[in-house]
Amino acid sequence: MKSDSLSSEESSANARGLTHFHGVGETLEGYRGKSLALLKRFGLSVGQQIRIVSKDRTETLGLLLPRYHGADDEHIVLKLKSGYNIGVNIASIDSIQIVEEEGKTGESSSFQGQVASKSIKSKEERVSGQEKVVSLLSTGGTIASKIDYVTGAVHPALSAEDLYAAIPELGRIADVRPELLFSIFSEDMEAKHWQTIAEKAIEKAQSGSDGVVIMSGTDILGILSAALSFALLGIDVPVVCVGSQRSSDRPSSDSALNLLGAVRFASTSEVPGVFVAMHASTSDDSIAIHLGTRVRKNHTSRRDAFQSIDIEPFAFVRGDELEYIGRPLQEEQKQKSIATKAAIDANLKFRTRFDSSVSLVKFYPGFNPRILDFLLEDLHARGIILEGTGLGHVSSKTVSKISELTKEGVFVGMTSQCIWGSVDLNVYRTGRDLLQAGVTPLANMLAETALAKLSWALGNFSSDLIKEIMTTNLCGEIVPRLVL
Amino acid sequence: MKSDSLSSEESSANARGLTHFHGVGETLEGYRGKSLALLKRFGLSVGQQIRIVSKDRTETLGLLLPRYHGADDEHIVLKLKSGYNIGVNIASIDSIQIVEEEGKTGESSSFQGQVASKSIKSKEERVSGQEKVVSLLSTGGTIASKIDYVTGAVHPALSAEDLYAAIPELGRIADVRPELLFSIFSEDMEAKHWQTIAEKAIEKAQSGSDGVVIMSGTDILGILSAALSFALLGIDVPVVCVGSQRSSDRPSSDSALNLLGAVRFASTSEVPGVFVAMHASTSDDSIAIHLGTRVRKNHTSRRDAFQSIDIEPFAFVRGDELEYIGRPLQEEQKQKSIATKAAIDANLKFRTRFDSSVSLVKFYPGFNPRILDFLLEDLHARGIILEGTGLGHVSSKTVSKISELTKEGVFVGMTSQCIWGSVDLNVYRTGRDLLQAGVTPLANMLAETALAKLSWALGNFSSDLIKEIMTTNLCGEIVPRLVL
Repeated sequence: MKSDSLSSEESSANARGLTHFHGVGETLEGYRGKSLALLKRFGLSVGQQIRIVSKDRTETLGLLLPRYHGADDEHIVLKLKSGYNIGVNIASIDSIQIVEEEGKTGESSSFQGQVASKSIKSKEERVSGQEKVVSLLSTGGTIASKIDYVTGAVHPALSAEDLYAAIPELGRIADVRPELLFSIFSEDMEAKHWQTIAEKAIEKAQSGSDGVVIMSGTDILGILSAALSFALLGIDVPVVCVGSQRSSDRPSSDSALNLLGAVRFASTSEVPGVFVAMHASTSDDSIAIHLGTRVRKNHTSRRDAFQSIDIEPFAFVRGDELEYIGRPLQEEQKQKSIATKAAIDANLKFRTRFDSSVSLVKFYPGFNPRILDFLLEDLHARGIILEGTGLGHVSSKTVSKISELTKEGVFVGMTSQCIWGSVDLNVYRTGRDLLQAGVTPLANMLAETALAKLSWALGNFSSDLIKEIMTTNLCGEIVPRLVL
Repeated sequence: MKSDSLSSEESSANARGLTHFHGVGETLEGYRGKSLALLKRFGLSVGQQIRIVSKDRTETLGLLLPRYHGADDEHIVLKLKSGYNIGVNIASIDSIQIVEEEGKTGESSSFQGQVASKSIKSKEERVSGQEKVVSLLSTGGTIASKIDYVTGAVHPALSAEDLYAAIPELGRIADVRPELLFSIFSEDMEAKHWQTIAEKAIEKAQSGSDGVVIMSGTDILGILSAALSFALLGIDVPVVCVGSQRSSDRPSSDSALNLLGAVRFASTSEVPGVFVAMHASTSDDSIAIHLGTRVRKNHTSRRDAFQSIDIEPFAFVRGDELEYIGRPLQEEQKQKSIATKAAIDANLKFRTRFDSSVSLVKFYPGFNPRILDFLLEDLHARGIILEGTGLGHVSSKTVSKISELTKEGVFVGMTSQCIWGSVDLNVYRTGRDLLQAGVTPLANMLAETALAKLSWALGNFSSDLIKEIMTTNLCGEIVPRLVL
């Protein structure tokens, strides 16, 4: 088996148009020429569990996947138990066996006992009274996308059902109940979608789901999870947002493993709240579970692009195991419980409305404060989150303008474009002037989290409560400042 | 010596108003009560090199610094050879010796041979024909700031001369020639200041300086260094921007060490170009030298807040040693030389103008594209840098609006708010639509670097050249994409 087979698969997938991904068990979809001949010779069809023995006696066990039309005829693609797909160069193959039943073939394979017997269980077979029920809500994004036949680009297409058919392991973790909420590009998702998703999650939690998993595009996963964290305050099940950085029908896709991690956490964790599940590293050995209010996409393309900011990830899923992180977890866990209780006490529970008259403004040298006039006068902004420099600074002339806005009743909150660390308006004179101008410093709240929280606060509470709500930690959005 | 003495110093400095920092050698400025009595007992005065022997026989060698008025009377503060200041609890002190002459006292101290003899050399003594000449330009910022007597906040005050007097080690590295350019809060620095600084740096390089060091606030150090990288294309000396995260008259200040590292690099490096020198870690053992176009402040308060993005730092200064980084350096070095040569060939050299009709716009869910109308119609924007999500995306309705702007001749460049990684408008349909709308993808150029480059390009070249200039790597602002 050549390790270069992956990159070859990857590049061919990128370069050409692809047909629809048909799920499993039907045909030899997409195979042609030499690879098709080989599969026919062994009497195989897509969807079967097979064991490939290579010429160097390495064995690989996995589910035979369909290929893209237009892909080369030198590889066959397997989905491994890890959830990862690999392309195997047929020149390296000595023989292929069908894995008929559990325990029947190949004592040398360490994960042989865990693969499906004959075929993929039907939904009816999977469901049993013993299993945890996890609702799987699909909203679009790469995790539910395929490559466009015409342009070669990736766009949303696969429904949650399609994915469920493609990842039979899901059925061994929980009774997963997929539902397509909508299918949009994540960059088109707005406050109104947050509300729809929140209300559906509440409905699922109240109708018996042990956990909810929400599939979305990674571009806005951080702000979505933040928005849901506030709208779902007081929820008593885990809600896990998940995406993938690579399209689900490409060999290096992280969608299966991320989804398995999300479902594992949603069905196992005893800690309620909103989280994000994504690759913890470039390898496939663990999925990080991040607190929904403290996570950010910090790389455009890496599978481990998501990072918890100023805290450790909440937990890791490694294979079948759920591993909570020591000290930070326990504190967060405690905070979480307090937050949940406080939310109920303060009647913050299930406030799902969002006000869209909010803006995020990043300051930069030469920033023209008249932009703030425009937000107030033309867009009727009720709230603005500033991304200041360093500890939370803007130019002197911007300070004067802000003062005019706050006098008009606009809430202006300060965050930092540094990403890590806390704003502090007491260190420099500019900071003091900002306080004087009525700016509310938001500690180490992420800018996107602050925007989502402000939209939520304005959507559900009267103006006189906004400042208190924004500066009170409700669900981990403000973490104790670390002195370093 | 108690290790907690630092934090006690730190907090007291933060809490109270402080008097002016008078430099060295005059009095026992700021000392009172027990600490004053102790210093008098040993016949000491501020500015002397002293050796403290603690009760546990530890020895500490350093320059006696003045204290803040209002500080406690239980510590005395030393500037160590490393450039770091420490507060020593007087309860831990057994005895204090004045270090009279080189080699005379204390054979046990490893750096004893390197301290100044009797007193600080005068400028005339320092200057010698053998030394490298480094111009030190001060523009304000924490590195040249003190704590406000009235409000307790930090504001710009110390001139380059003040700092030079406070850090005599500078004189042992090079003939450092300080000059105060202006003294502003860094968040008030705009394109016009970039031009002034660039022209002064050129003047210094052309009048015999072997290197130029520019002291500025850290908030805008990244975009300043980027702007200078373009304006100083073809310069034949190193130009190093430096700041500090902690005020120079506070014990945990990083200003002395950062400045020593900057001057060391500026006087030693054979690679010309624009760089940033800041702490490489929270410890004091090395200063990272970052390429001016690829550096970002990623933490609000840590001394190691600055990071090179998508590449390794260019070099490290460890004590007296300059350590270039292996592979990435050599490539960059080559690129640098090519860039310098290309700049001269293409008549890009010393184009110091900047156009201020540029804006940086960060996209977020719910972004109202009418903001772009405002930038065009009311602010007469000639160029806009977008910070898209992920690989470089904005909402569908924003795409339509962008199309209107590019038709009006506005340059619209796409960067990613992810910070790390490259934009790629060929993966998703939204990206393709953006290309169709006339957006120019800017690879892995940092958003702030792209803004500075666009301001420079529009300031010096005709409209038809802007797209080519923006997409051509001139000085490391675009690095080869890493596939991960």
